[in-house]
Amino acid sequence: MSDQDATPTPSPAPPPPSGPPPKVTNRGRSAAPIPSSNSASSDIPDFEFFGVPGPRGLPPLTEYLDITDVDMMRRPNESNKMQHHTMHYHSDQLIVRRGQEFQVKITFNRPYVSTDKIAVEFIIGSSPQFSKGTYIPVFPTKERQSSWAGRITNQSGNEITMGITPAANCIVGKYSMYVAVSTPFGIRRTRRDNSRDLYILFNPWASADAVFLDDETERKECVMNEVGIIYHGAHDDISERNWNYGQFNYGVLDACIYIMDRSEMPITNRGDPIKVTRKASAMLNSHDDDNGVLVGNWSGDYTYGVAPTSWTGSTDILLAYASSKMPVCYAQCWVYAAVFNTFLRCLGIPSRVVTNFFSAHDNDGNLKTDIILKENGAIDRERTRDSVWNYHCWNECYMSRPDLPAGFGGWQVVDATPQETSDGMYRCGPASVQAIKHGQICFPFDAAFVFAEVNSDVVFYSRRKDGTMDPVRVNQTHIGRLVLTKAPGGMTRRDLTDQYKFPEGSTEERTVLEKAEQYGCKREKSNPPPADVDLVLPTLEISVGDDFELSLEFINRSDQRRTVEAYISGSVVFYTGVTSNDFLNESPTVKIDPNKSVKELVTVESKKYMSKLVEQANLNFIVTGKIKETGQIVTAMKVVTLHNPKLIVEVSGGGRVSEEMMASVQFTNPFTFSLEGVYIRMEGPGLMSPKSKYYSMIPGGSSLTWTEFFTPQRTGSTRVIATLDCPALRQVYGQATVTIQP
Amino acid sequence: MSDQDATPTPSPAPPPPSGPPPKVTNRGRSAAPIPSSNSASSDIPDFEFFGVPGPRGLPPLTEYLDITDVDMMRRPNESNKMQHHTMHYHSDQLIVRRGQEFQVKITFNRPYVSTDKIAVEFIIGSSPQFSKGTYIPVFPTKERQSSWAGRITNQSGNEITMGITPAANCIVGKYSMYVAVSTPFGIRRTRRDNSRDLYILFNPWASADAVFLDDETERKECVMNEVGIIYHGAHDDISERNWNYGQFNYGVLDACIYIMDRSEMPITNRGDPIKVTRKASAMLNSHDDDNGVLVGNWSGDYTYGVAPTSWTGSTDILLAYASSKMPVCYAQCWVYAAVFNTFLRCLGIPSRVVTNFFSAHDNDGNLKTDIILKENGAIDRERTRDSVWNYHCWNECYMSRPDLPAGFGGWQVVDATPQETSDGMYRCGPASVQAIKHGQICFPFDAAFVFAEVNSDVVFYSRRKDGTMDPVRVNQTHIGRLVLTKAPGGMTRRDLTDQYKFPEGSTEERTVLEKAEQYGCKREKSNPPPADVDLVLPTLEISVGDDFELSLEFINRSDQRRTVEAYISGSVVFYTGVTSNDFLNESPTVKIDPNKSVKELVTVESKKYMSKLVEQANLNFIVTGKIKETGQIVTAMKVVTLHNPKLIVEVSGGGRVSEEMMASVQFTNPFTFSLEGVYIRMEGPGLMSPKSKYYSMIPGGSSLTWTEFFTPQRTGSTRVIATLDCPALRQVYGQATVTIQP
Repeated sequence: MSDQDATPTPSPAPPPPSGPPPKVTNRGRSAAPIPSSNSASSDIPDFEFFGVPGPRGLPPLTEYLDITDVDMMRRPNESNKMQHHTMHYHSDQLIVRRGQEFQVKITFNRPYVSTDKIAVEFIIGSSPQFSKGTYIPVFPTKERQSSWAGRITNQSGNEITMGITPAANCIVGKYSMYVAVSTPFGIRRTRRDNSRDLYILFNPWASADAVFLDDETERKECVMNEVGIIYHGAHDDISERNWNYGQFNYGVLDACIYIMDRSEMPITNRGDPIKVTRKASAMLNSHDDDNGVLVGNWSGDYTYGVAPTSWTGSTDILLAYASSKMPVCYAQCWVYAAVFNTFLRCLGIPSRVVTNFFSAHDNDGNLKTDIILKENGAIDRERTRDSVWNYHCWNECYMSRPDLPAGFGGWQVVDATPQETSDGMYRCGPASVQAIKHGQICFPFDAAFVFAEVNSDVVFYSRRKDGTMDPVRVNQTHIGRLVLTKAPGGMTRRDLTDQYKFPEGSTEERTVLEKAEQYGCKREKSNPPPADVDLVLPTLEISVGDDFELSLEFINRSDQRRTVEAYISGSVVFYTGVTSNDFLNESPTVKIDPNKSVKELVTVESKKYMSKLVEQANLNFIVTGKIKETGQIVTAMKVVTLHNPKLIVEVSGGGRVSEEMMASVQFTNPFTFSLEGVYIRMEGPGLMSPKSKYYSMIPGGSSLTWTEFFTPQRTGSTRVIATLDCPALRQVYGQATVTIQP
Repeated sequence: MSDQDATPTPSPAPPPPSGPPPKVTNRGRSAAPIPSSNSASSDIPDFEFFGVPGPRGLPPLTEYLDITDVDMMRRPNESNKMQHHTMHYHSDQLIVRRGQEFQVKITFNRPYVSTDKIAVEFIIGSSPQFSKGTYIPVFPTKERQSSWAGRITNQSGNEITMGITPAANCIVGKYSMYVAVSTPFGIRRTRRDNSRDLYILFNPWASADAVFLDDETERKECVMNEVGIIYHGAHDDISERNWNYGQFNYGVLDACIYIMDRSEMPITNRGDPIKVTRKASAMLNSHDDDNGVLVGNWSGDYTYGVAPTSWTGSTDILLAYASSKMPVCYAQCWVYAAVFNTFLRCLGIPSRVVTNFFSAHDNDGNLKTDIILKENGAIDRERTRDSVWNYHCWNECYMSRPDLPAGFGGWQVVDATPQETSDGMYRCGPASVQAIKHGQICFPFDAAFVFAEVNSDVVFYSRRKDGTMDPVRVNQTHIGRLVLTKAPGGMTRRDLTDQYKFPEGSTEERTVLEKAEQYGCKREKSNPPPADVDLVLPTLEISVGDDFELSLEFINRSDQRRTVEAYISGSVVFYTGVTSNDFLNESPTVKIDPNKSVKELVTVESKKYMSKLVEQANLNFIVTGKIKETGQIVTAMKVVTLHNPKLIVEVSGGGRVSEEMMASVQFTNPFTFSLEGVYIRMEGPGLMSPKSKYYSMIPGGSSLTWTEFFTPQRTGSTRVIATLDCPALRQVYGQATVTIQP
């Protein structure tokens, strides 16, 4: 056959196979799939032969040790849970913390002697492997030790007590346990038994653990406390939300592990608090159908879920996610932060929710928030697109940072609320608070973003007719006005502002800002001279439905007469600073004598704003103006958070563990109109699980009382927390403090 | 009405509305959606009134300047494209680079005088805004300047030539341009006209640009060169793939911008090469249906797409993605790197593809790759799950790093191949090569990962019967053996290993590894003493189908006789190091006299491996053994890349621009069996667009010739590149170099 004869001729390509392409398999990419599920597990055999058994099978193994019973000592009042600070978890399983010894009792068919070869084996995930830390045998003798220490702490009759110390950096999650006896023919071991499954958590009490926190007051608050207070409102009129973190409630620990499983986080990464917190910051929010825990919604329409303001705690959310395996609707920043806090405390990472008042957001880590004025000095709402959030909540968690140079361990910012402008940044942190304070924002993760949230300037631009803009005023003190968290122990606030920033105007502050600019943060460089007229807006505490007066003070600091053409704009805003509706626009001309001040009174009638209110009932006043004599611009901003009616919560009864008590919620509709589609929710850490009640209508002026019975589960000071929510009125709260005696 | 009468009673909650929940809107979250599409644009009006026009409308505007023509000077041979190095782009639009002046000619209805108020306006994306850099007016006079400089470079009659210099940090993408004249009544401007749209790219020639690269040879290679060579195979038997980057081809620039649009990358981020490269590293791979450009597949089954080894260039891939808006099937590492390279060069970021031989992968940034041996010293394939990639390709791109301390600018690693074990790391970089070399892996982004890819140790563990393991041998020189890229200018290799690492065994190397450990990289600490017997495997160059002999040399460096119980395993592996099939297992016992060496010959017959070969025809030999006298372990590893038959590519004809030429591809099936379902592909930078041909069968021993005509588009040295691909034989390449005269 010659070459020519055999020359193949091209033919049309066959049509591609129809139907969707099959899922691409892993073959050729990696030797085995990476274990990433804690619920998957591979059983290990009851008997592992050494070599092939002979034709007559095994010889009788009667001379070797046999295991008759294993006691995990897992009752809440036994020493394991007491010493490991896990007695509050509502779980039948043993729960311990790494880097600290726990005990198990093993009973054999005869007394254990030192020549017996036994091991207690722990496995986690599928494909357990010694070198990956997913299979850990623990031996009772000093001669033979693995990364987890073992010793016999007691021996009596056929029973021994083994003290086992998991490595302080071991994987956190749910392990299964086996007892194995080595014989010359093979290894004999206990059958898989779910009652011997145990959870190993992070340990802030162990000095070798990366989350070690050497302060018992802080640990009691940031790991053990279920009662939370989350601050909101305005920096000069602070409101509180109560929250039941519920980290010890039945099913919550499993839900937290499920979150990591759902994210396909490799099992081997789960001992590293940096990776766990970073991954969780991404998984807490469900963006673009990635099936995270919570769907964000700031639209005001919560028909298809629960309004963010209506939740009383994390339990409902986490259990719904774990059982439905679907994202839960809906969250805003404090819901993300509160559920994240539950996740962290539940796994043993010390954490707290912090609130930053006037938080720069969505500005891609730059140090500028732009407000555009028209040529006459009035605000140009159409062109002002940046917004300052009245407040924003994130979490701090405590850990060492071996991935960074020394000095950046300690509290770290993590934030589960998705950022909009950022480059796909639906995760944030851990970012060292120390690094943020010192402007060392070149270190991972996302320190520059958090730095901008507390340090941006508000820049007012005057827009010319040709579209160009000149900066006319820079407010360097508005953003990051106050950072708060709940103080450990009590129910009071703790001011963290000095953890994030040096004092305004200090030399250190200037140095830090310069350093941040060296690392690429952009700031407004021009510094227009301050006007010689100051504009001061008062602090107001107003209830929803009240008429009130806004008193603007114009202070002339010059020796000449000044005339200010002022523009006063009042608008209803979301807590994100986004304007919903204008309800007030006035433009008085104010004349001020040299070195004098003038007060301008603006009357705000409730009928003007009531029909326009959105959920958190914030009114935003911006006053801008041009000084006729100098052309300088004056500005002032004020957020007024209208106070909602409150729920009255009352608790009565014995006040003792396991004795029935009663909680009542009372509400009076203070308005002349009816409230429709009303949900009331109530729960209490250690007292009652979440309950809710629906009222189709509450007529104007009418009252209601809802009573529930409950049985306290443990001693100590706690709270009953209640919320009321309906489309016309959100963010109505009430709580009662209860102390339960033994 | 008393309170009691009005007490509302709870009723059952209404059923939730049926149907899927609606898409959550943005309302309340931000004032306006963040502009993130370059194809979206908002027109600006022809006439913008100042104030409201009176009842009789506008006065006649005849006394003001009117625009009669705008000439973008956009032909390839005009000065703009020549000076901006954009003459090769196959596009009718003006394409210029930022930080460098370009010219436009504007004709008016009368001569321009200095009192006329004109501006040339540029806008990009929806909602253009001056303070965001998405609306830029440019003025001809020195008195009035914005961030982009303008001046009149020529004036003659009614015509002026404006020189415009875009800011060196301006947004990169497609702008529309308007000419505006300001009158006391308003602004008159040109209508939107697509022919005045222009692209502004990164500028490695401009010293103020973050991607400035002060080396014309490098710029010619890393920005202007379309012909690529990508290295693969083994470090001691290197093969080449030719690749047509095709960054100037018709539609490629639009496809690159579409990638950023598809990722919803905010327009305002697109001037920052750090953000652009990081985002693109994520978007180049399509993971979990995020609709990135390329679907990875290492399975060997490419029925539903094009086999990764079959592509000849990036053009087909990018155009298919942009037109279908669906991920393209299929890629492996060099395809990701090659298409990423096109993206980078097309936008003007200097870049090159590098190959790292023996690349640690999927090990989560740790410095250990584990190989598990049985107690007898033979490899335990079931438990060895880590793999070392025979080679891995990534990109380097050149830029300053203002976000890091000084000294980390320059070449940066970016990698679009998704990592499997990493914490959701489907993006990687930019990571400073300087930081990697010096162990400063605390700096973003992902430097620790890349550090591990070139610096990990291979650790051999011996597994005991009880499941515990002891490290018995640590190979510190295997991983990151050689890092190569194509040398600028020629067709030769450039060794970049010393850019990534200090010499093996140097003091600097030890210091760097210690620093990396301080930043959390985990290394095997134990250092088992080296055995006194060395095992050496030869370098082999073998063609597919050949029988050959493997000669193992055992060198006894001790003064005693040594006996080695050796295990020789030969397996077919994917280029990822993953084993497909074993084809050889021998276990000779070798006795070596003191200070002597012994050669053990192993015959490898082609019939044993041929039926088991997978696409890149790699054979992996691992020899392990135990020295009887000392219990020490010896190991040796060798990858043999079998050489495939080649395509013969021949080019004939004039060799001049616009004169027809002819390219032929010849192939002879060297095997005794037929090849079925064969695709041959051919293309050439500046010569021909991608073409392919399908042959349903090529009988064993037969030959074929495929001839295509083409017309060269420009002068210079270039290549015709061809591949042949079928399920039974992949990675068959050929190329011919052509020099085109004017």
